[in-house]
Amino acid sequence: MFGSPAVLEIFSDIGTVRRMLDVEAALARAEAQCGVISDAAASVIAEVCAVPAVIDLDALAHAAVAAGNLAIPFVKQLTAAVTARDAEAGRYVHWGATSQDIIDTALVLQTVDALDAIDTDLLQLGDACAALAGAHRATPMVARTWLQHALPTTFGAKAAGWLDALCRDLQRIARARQQARALQFGGAAGTLASLGDDAPAVAAHFARALKLDLPALPWHAHRDRLVEVAAALGMLTGTLGKMARDVSLLMQTEIAEAAEPAAEGRGGSSTMPHKRNPVGCAAVLSAAVRVPPLVGTMFAAMPQEHERALGGWQAEWDTLPQIITLAAGALRQMRDVIGGLQVDAARMRANLDITHGLILGEAAMLELGLRIGRMPAHRLVEAASHRAIAHGLTLRDALAQQLREDPSHAGLLDAAALDKLSDPARYAGQATSFADATVAAWRAARADQHKD
Amino acid sequence: MFGSPAVLEIFSDIGTVRRMLDVEAALARAEAQCGVISDAAASVIAEVCAVPAVIDLDALAHAAVAAGNLAIPFVKQLTAAVTARDAEAGRYVHWGATSQDIIDTALVLQTVDALDAIDTDLLQLGDACAALAGAHRATPMVARTWLQHALPTTFGAKAAGWLDALCRDLQRIARARQQARALQFGGAAGTLASLGDDAPAVAAHFARALKLDLPALPWHAHRDRLVEVAAALGMLTGTLGKMARDVSLLMQTEIAEAAEPAAEGRGGSSTMPHKRNPVGCAAVLSAAVRVPPLVGTMFAAMPQEHERALGGWQAEWDTLPQIITLAAGALRQMRDVIGGLQVDAARMRANLDITHGLILGEAAMLELGLRIGRMPAHRLVEAASHRAIAHGLTLRDALAQQLREDPSHAGLLDAAALDKLSDPARYAGQATSFADATVAAWRAARADQHKD
Amino acid sequence: MFGSPAVLEIFSDIGTVRRMLDVEAALARAEAQCGVISDAAASVIAEVCAVPAVIDLDALAHAAVAAGNLAIPFVKQLTAAVTARDAEAGRYVHWGATSQDIIDTALVLQTVDALDAIDTDLLQLGDACAALAGAHRATPMVARTWLQHALPTTFGAKAAGWLDALCRDLQRIARARQQARALQFGGAAGTLASLGDDAPAVAAHFARALKLDLPALPWHAHRDRLVEVAAALGMLTGTLGKMARDVSLLMQTEIAEAAEPAAEGRGGSSTMPHKRNPVGCAAVLSAAVRVPPLVGTMFAAMPQEHERALGGWQAEWDTLPQIITLAAGALRQMRDVIGGLQVDAARMRANLDITHGLILGEAAMLELGLRIGRMPAHRLVEAASHRAIAHGLTLRDALAQQLREDPSHAGLLDAAALDKLSDPARYAGQATSFADATVAAWRAARADQHKD
Amino acid sequence: MFGSPAVLEIFSDIGTVRRMLDVEAALARAEAQCGVISDAAASVIAEVCAVPAVIDLDALAHAAVAAGNLAIPFVKQLTAAVTARDAEAGRYVHWGATSQDIIDTALVLQTVDALDAIDTDLLQLGDACAALAGAHRATPMVARTWLQHALPTTFGAKAAGWLDALCRDLQRIARARQQARALQFGGAAGTLASLGDDAPAVAAHFARALKLDLPALPWHAHRDRLVEVAAALGMLTGTLGKMARDVSLLMQTEIAEAAEPAAEGRGGSSTMPHKRNPVGCAAVLSAAVRVPPLVGTMFAAMPQEHERALGGWQAEWDTLPQIITLAAGALRQMRDVIGGLQVDAARMRANLDITHGLILGEAAMLELGLRIGRMPAHRLVEAASHRAIAHGLTLRDALAQQLREDPSHAGLLDAAALDKLSDPARYAGQATSFADATVAAWRAARADQHKD
Repeated sequence: MFGSPAVLEIFSDIGTVRRMLDVEAALARAEAQCGVISDAAASVIAEVCAVPAVIDLDALAHAAVAAGNLAIPFVKQLTAAVTARDAEAGRYVHWGATSQDIIDTALVLQTVDALDAIDTDLLQLGDACAALAGAHRATPMVARTWLQHALPTTFGAKAAGWLDALCRDLQRIARARQQARALQFGGAAGTLASLGDDAPAVAAHFARALKLDLPALPWHAHRDRLVEVAAALGMLTGTLGKMARDVSLLMQTEIAEAAEPAAEGRGGSSTMPHKRNPVGCAAVLSAAVRVPPLVGTMFAAMPQEHERALGGWQAEWDTLPQIITLAAGALRQMRDVIGGLQVDAARMRANLDITHGLILGEAAMLELGLRIGRMPAHRLVEAASHRAIAHGLTLRDALAQQLREDPSHAGLLDAAALDKLSDPARYAGQATSFADATVAAWRAARADQHKD
Repeated sequence: MFGSPAVLEIFSDIGTVRRMLDVEAALARAEAQCGVISDAAASVIAEVCAVPAVIDLDALAHAAVAAGNLAIPFVKQLTAAVTARDAEAGRYVHWGATSQDIIDTALVLQTVDALDAIDTDLLQLGDACAALAGAHRATPMVARTWLQHALPTTFGAKAAGWLDALCRDLQRIARARQQARALQFGGAAGTLASLGDDAPAVAAHFARALKLDLPALPWHAHRDRLVEVAAALGMLTGTLGKMARDVSLLMQTEIAEAAEPAAEGRGGSSTMPHKRNPVGCAAVLSAAVRVPPLVGTMFAAMPQEHERALGGWQAEWDTLPQIITLAAGALRQMRDVIGGLQVDAARMRANLDITHGLILGEAAMLELGLRIGRMPAHRLVEAASHRAIAHGLTLRDALAQQLREDPSHAGLLDAAALDKLSDPARYAGQATSFADATVAAWRAARADQHKD
Repeated sequence: MFGSPAVLEIFSDIGTVRRMLDVEAALARAEAQCGVISDAAASVIAEVCAVPAVIDLDALAHAAVAAGNLAIPFVKQLTAAVTARDAEAGRYVHWGATSQDIIDTALVLQTVDALDAIDTDLLQLGDACAALAGAHRATPMVARTWLQHALPTTFGAKAAGWLDALCRDLQRIARARQQARALQFGGAAGTLASLGDDAPAVAAHFARALKLDLPALPWHAHRDRLVEVAAALGMLTGTLGKMARDVSLLMQTEIAEAAEPAAEGRGGSSTMPHKRNPVGCAAVLSAAVRVPPLVGTMFAAMPQEHERALGGWQAEWDTLPQIITLAAGALRQMRDVIGGLQVDAARMRANLDITHGLILGEAAMLELGLRIGRMPAHRLVEAASHRAIAHGLTLRDALAQQLREDPSHAGLLDAAALDKLSDPARYAGQATSFADATVAAWRAARADQHKD
Repeated sequence: MFGSPAVLEIFSDIGTVRRMLDVEAALARAEAQCGVISDAAASVIAEVCAVPAVIDLDALAHAAVAAGNLAIPFVKQLTAAVTARDAEAGRYVHWGATSQDIIDTALVLQTVDALDAIDTDLLQLGDACAALAGAHRATPMVARTWLQHALPTTFGAKAAGWLDALCRDLQRIARARQQARALQFGGAAGTLASLGDDAPAVAAHFARALKLDLPALPWHAHRDRLVEVAAALGMLTGTLGKMARDVSLLMQTEIAEAAEPAAEGRGGSSTMPHKRNPVGCAAVLSAAVRVPPLVGTMFAAMPQEHERALGGWQAEWDTLPQIITLAAGALRQMRDVIGGLQVDAARMRANLDITHGLILGEAAMLELGLRIGRMPAHRLVEAASHRAIAHGLTLRDALAQQLREDPSHAGLLDAAALDKLSDPARYAGQATSFADATVAAWRAARADQHKD
């Protein structure tokens, strides 16, 4: 599956309508609690709202196109349905609220639910990375800079880099959720005037019923709460894109150090049996191309006119759901890719030797420097490197020749010492401990998460 | 001034070089503390780094273009300068570090300094908004939705909306700064291999010297720390853009409810003496158009290849400084605009009457509803509204005629009651208390800020 | 309707599938013409492809999610349907083609059809602007710069500005269509190897059957043809956004110089009878916020890897259709807004007087300059302007006072001359002839269009 | 050099000021030709404008920041300089023009000059691609889809793909230049009112003097002419990014089929002698990340208010020059990369064998199909492929075994036939003729270019 089924459901037509009904029901109940409308009316409204089928989705979609807004035809349909049950109750549907109150608050409910679903997948992905970082903490592989072999590292360190970023994503999403879970309730112009002195109490009950925070004032024309969600998911998508970039590069036919999990009908080709396409990575990279400009749209839409915008608010309607579903889909993909990643440690080891040991020049310099001083060591290794390239030798053999030819270096390194120097696993620096520290930090963050 | 002088200085050539020198000096000292290099060498390096003039900025700019990277020619110049003082010390300049370590860590120092400067202006802007929200807590004005008159509100409520958003911006920037203040130190491939077992201690001292956090592992290929700064400033710019949109709309010749502060040579026109151009708002709105796609660039650059990117990292170099300087400049503008905003309360009051009281139809309906029931009240006000539009009457007078014509309404509302109904100040709902609550929240957030 | 029904249909599921079937049918026929497959097989394939219902859309959507690509399950379903009719023919479905050939070429067909539909609406919108520019060629109104009154112009000149841009949009879209109407046909890797020596002839017949151009080589990894369409529509959306900005600003309650056409249930409010929301403009401005970053996505996706991309190609799939449908919807909206625009020439005239004639200071200076020299005239008008502002006079009356007070100006301007000077219609410069020239240019461009 | 020196000069401070002076001089001369100002005044103005040093750049930069606009302080400085020479002439500096006329028209001049410089580099890059496409028209290499080996192609076909896109870029830039070369001249509000009846003649002479077109009406609030330049350069940058992506992937240590030209101090590493960083490609890819959102900014800025914008126009000022200089710099880089590209045909050939011939499965199927029918051939090759993978054989040897084991296939293919089948050069389809056709088309386009 390329998308997250849970998140797709949340933003489906029915998922949207269900939450709009929840908002209207909670409003009616809050108003009844404050004596603004009768308990009887609130009960009828709540009962009707409990059955999503009360709304004709096709008619709604069609009317929304004409009205330019989902809430207007929604309230019409809902009012008709309530009125059909109880004419008096029908008068109190949507009482004191404006379209934006319903649209924004329903979107908040969708967003909170979607972030919960995203959290679940994010924890699984983090755990999978932690498992890789642990299992391969000391598996040597090439570190590549500018797409060129640089020095040895371990695959655990690479996976830990992913994990470390995911750990920040987890915390960032938690903060964004906290910002976003705010009731929007302002009435026609943000003053709640039509509710008179009952307004504060109704708003408080309304927020409580939906398990949302009640902000100091309505936020209808200030959209940063939603933009922060978009930004947090944009960063998550960026992290996932980085992982997909790495995995797909490792999966190239010539490199072949890792592969997406094989699955029936997934990325294969009947006429080209050697191919296994990185279809999961492609989906993630596609999201990583699409999400940044969509996040930019959310930022660009912020300067909204006065008490309700002309274009900016409307620009968010499809954009935020797209960002959330794309991020959730990419996360789901990467969870599966990393969860089933095929790691070829032997190939990683073999690729370290492609440059015939030149990758260990720095290590040789440092080791020799301890014995003959830094500058002579540098000269020695540089000469050996050139010799290796010129004659197609390994650095080890070139160095051995170099040492043999210079009597002053007699006995400097014996074969065992040379072999040791040629072992990339010995020159991975802090890679292993970086991996360990990151896994430990993940476990701590995860435990914190559970406490909340 | 359109930019923030402090922030422009931080990201000037000399501001950049000064921080790169600070990084190299701190590295040398940390290595001396751990015995990796001699105290003598560290002292010489630190002394040379204390004098920014040691770097020839023109030569640096020229060489950077050729090298594709500021750090390579910078290290060359620095090494030459140290070597000139002490050949031995010259060998230990930049020891164990890679270009990216210096570029990234210097950028972190610049970012932290810039965020501090931004904080100062943000607090001033917030205070100015709080002052407006307090002074005009009950100043009636039109609430406008879709650029149309909707209902009355108060100017205090509008200013409180700005303030509420700024309050979140303040907290968001604080969190972004916390994320961003992390040392980047990984050596050639992120393993610190060349420092051997001394690496952890050197890294810890290095971070401490620069007052930065030491992360679990180098973040060279994971850029979310910087992207979060970009996002936080993008949201700030969006808030500022919303304020500028509001102010510039209020400043239209036909509306004239507020005006940017007048200043010699600022926004005037000699041939058009009636004009006062909203030049501050224009600068802010320009930033609000430019910053979102630049923030998008930061997100788009995140999928960076392996242990050092090919294009993505380089794309950040000019982009993040542009975002920070644009946001800081917009903030400075808006601080001045709001700090000196000319508010015309009389004009606000007068504009409420442009629709001849129709804006108070809802208020009349609710008031009458208490006396004759909701539906009759609705019919009555609707008829009066149509009469008012048709005959160019005020709603008050049309309603009076309507009541006089219908014997059943005799004595329903006397002239005093009608006058009361026509007072928009009485139908601003919670506007005043929203303003008060927001100002109180700002004061609390500001106090918290001081404690940190 | 907020979207263009024709364009929505083109990009609907069935619209997409219909064109994919057209592509497969054309391929089969082309191969039969070149003797690559039998006429019998091609006939069966073409017959099956003529009935879109052969494809189960729900199953297709579901399978596409799993396959990561619409073409793979589409070809499976089609092959099954053909095989059911004729097993031999079933073997030759999609012969020699790759998924990308079908997806890209079907997208080209959709794009060309959509651009045709857009052309129709664009011509209607242009005609409506031309009608406004003609009818109001000399209708005086305020020219506003920085949202401030500047000088008089005519509404015809403003409408001509819109028209002039639409004229360029028309030509730009024509060029983009010409670029885009290119067959994509390369087989598995862009070499058409599996068709051997028949490849060139098959490709030529294939292109001809679909009325597309045959490019020098397949363009699967070079996407500028589609990006050019996106860019042309981005510019069209920008033009529409500028029009919507202007109209919605003119429609503000305080300005009221123009209004969107009234329609039942369109933009009205039952509780606020004075409101007519600019819902068409809001839809267009929303598109003008959303389209630019989507166009940016198309540009960002261009650096595609080797002979088929990993992410970039996939990023286009939803993006280009979104751009086209948003642009087409915005165009449809603006066509209706301009087609039924309510222009209040009296209000335009009245608003010219809001600044009490100060707007004509430049005119007065020039007129007086002819009589008393430029500098004295400047001093005189400046003094009159200050007097007008200070005492709430019109510039005309302030000038009259100023002249009366200074004996040296006795008889300089009599009342009639002063009245003439106060007529903004006399100081609209070239506005009328600009309007005329632009309308003439539109008619010429339209005539050219018809010839093609 | 990472930038284009010519284009950097055009957009330098002095390059900008020089063109603003050219505009003012041309305006004065045009007005003298029409008798609006005296010949004497025009001569003095033109003489002063001929010496760029008349403008104090530092003071200008400083004052522009305060004025929010480069033209206001520029006109002040220029007026002072002219007045110092001749007080009477000083009165006629900038006569009848507005700031935007000067800023926009000078920008047009810069843009046209920059596009000329870009053309030169683009022709050189195209020629270099044509040379590669010709020289390697038949050099076999792997075609890669989804970063996986797919089928054979030729390097000439890949270079031809680049060339084909460049050919469209060349034509697109020519069209954009034609659109952009339009005088902006409208005076304070776009009506040229202050020039009275002389306006048309002045405008005509003004345009002619600057070799610009005179449009039907001023375009100050309609920005598509400049956006089209941005879009054309965005597409060029996308093409360059695709080339850089390809080259940098080919340059990976494990693939090594191509390399950027070596140059002293370019992309090397003293401690890692095996590294040659693709620094040119990195610069291009960085531009390909940065330019798309900047182009998006130009689109987003289009909905400009009335007769002069509030934010949108200002947003273009730095953005368009950034786009042009980034695109020109990337073009210069790629010109050098391709001009000196090191192609390793032997390595290309060797990499074709990495999959042990599996890459030729399709070729084998088609060849065998001619002899034993399509389905049996498919089964045979599929079985051989599985055998090859399972036993580490080449497809050739696995097929030979397969044939030997099945008596029905006795004599089907002898060793020579098998060898022939294993030659990837024989299965590159139309790659060679695609390369030839594209080179021919380039030559034709280039010849056309020369004619203009």
